[in-house]
Amino acid sequence: MKMAMPNSREIERKFLLKQLPENLKRARRYVIAQGYLATESAGRQVRLRKKGKTASLTFKVGRGRSREEREIKLSPKQFAALWPATAGRRLCKLRYEIPWRDRLIEIDIYSGRHSGLVVEEVEFPDRATCRKFKPPAWFGREVTGEKRYSNVRLANE
Amino acid sequence: MKMAMPNSREIERKFLLKQLPENLKRARRYVIAQGYLATESAGRQVRLRKKGKTASLTFKVGRGRSREEREIKLSPKQFAALWPATAGRRLCKLRYEIPWRDRLIEIDIYSGRHSGLVVEEVEFPDRATCRKFKPPAWFGREVTGEKRYSNVRLANE
Repeated sequence: MKMAMPNSREIERKFLLKQLPENLKRARRYVIAQGYLATESAGRQVRLRKKGKTASLTFKVGRGRSREEREIKLSPKQFAALWPATAGRRLCKLRYEIPWRDRLIEIDIYSGRHSGLVVEEVEFPDRATCRKFKPPAWFGREVTGEKRYSNVRLANE
Repeated sequence: MKMAMPNSREIERKFLLKQLPENLKRARRYVIAQGYLATESAGRQVRLRKKGKTASLTFKVGRGRSREEREIKLSPKQFAALWPATAGRRLCKLRYEIPWRDRLIEIDIYSGRHSGLVVEEVEFPDRATCRKFKPPAWFGREVTGEKRYSNVRLANE
C-alpha cells in the first residue's frame, strides 16, 4: 500500500523583531491576506491565503517547530467562493523576503488591529539545520510555538 | 459595501429508513467518499468529497434544517493533495437519487463500520416548503439535526 506522505513538512522558527534590517527597501515584498475556514486544537486548521495575486488553501496540523502542511493553489473563482466564510477570522500583513546566508527570512509586518506587531520566520529543510540556526543580531525573542503569536489566534482576536 | 452572500443555503431534512422504495434499481446512484479536514462546534466544517468522478471541497456552518454552505469543485490533482489529511475522519456511502414529486430524495446507504445505517435526505428551496414536507410512508423517524447521525460524527467514530 502506498504511504500517505505529507505534501510537505514545515519546519520553522519564529522570532519577534528587535530592529529592521538595513536592506529592507531592496527586498521582495507581498501583501498577504489570510483567513481561516475552520480551526481545531492541536494546530489543525484550514487556511485561505492571497499572497500578491496568488491564492491558496492550506491544511496544517501540529504545533511548534515542525508541522505537517498540505497546500493547493486556488483559481480566483475558487478563492472568491470560499473567502466570505472567513469573515471575522482574518488578518493582513506585509511580508518582506530577505535572503540571509542559505536561508530565507520572512518579515511579517501586521496591519489592522495588530499593527505594531512584527515577526520574523525562518524555514528549514530539516530539523538539524533548524536546531543549529543562530539568529542574527537584529532578531528579538524567539516565540516559536507560542500560541499568543500564532496566526490563528491573531486572526480570531 | 458588497454583502458577503452565502454561496448557498442548504435547507434539508433527514430521516432514517423504514423500507427501501420499489423503484431503486432504476435510480441514479453514486459512490461517495468523504472526509473532514477540520471541524468545529456549531457544525463548522471543511469537507472533501468524491461523488462518482467529481471532487469537491465544501465549507458548512450551522446545525439543523438550514445551514450555510459554500462549495468549490476540485481538480483531481487538488483533491489528491488534500485527501490524505482526512485519514481517520472518513466515511463511504452509496447514494441513490430518487425524484419524488417536485423534490429529490437522496438515500444514503453507509458502508464500512456504519454498514446497516440507511438515511434519507430531502433538500428544499425554502423554509416554507421544508416545513410543509410530508414524508412518504417508506420514511422512518426524522433525525434532522441529531448529532448522532451527522456525517462528521459518523466519520470520526
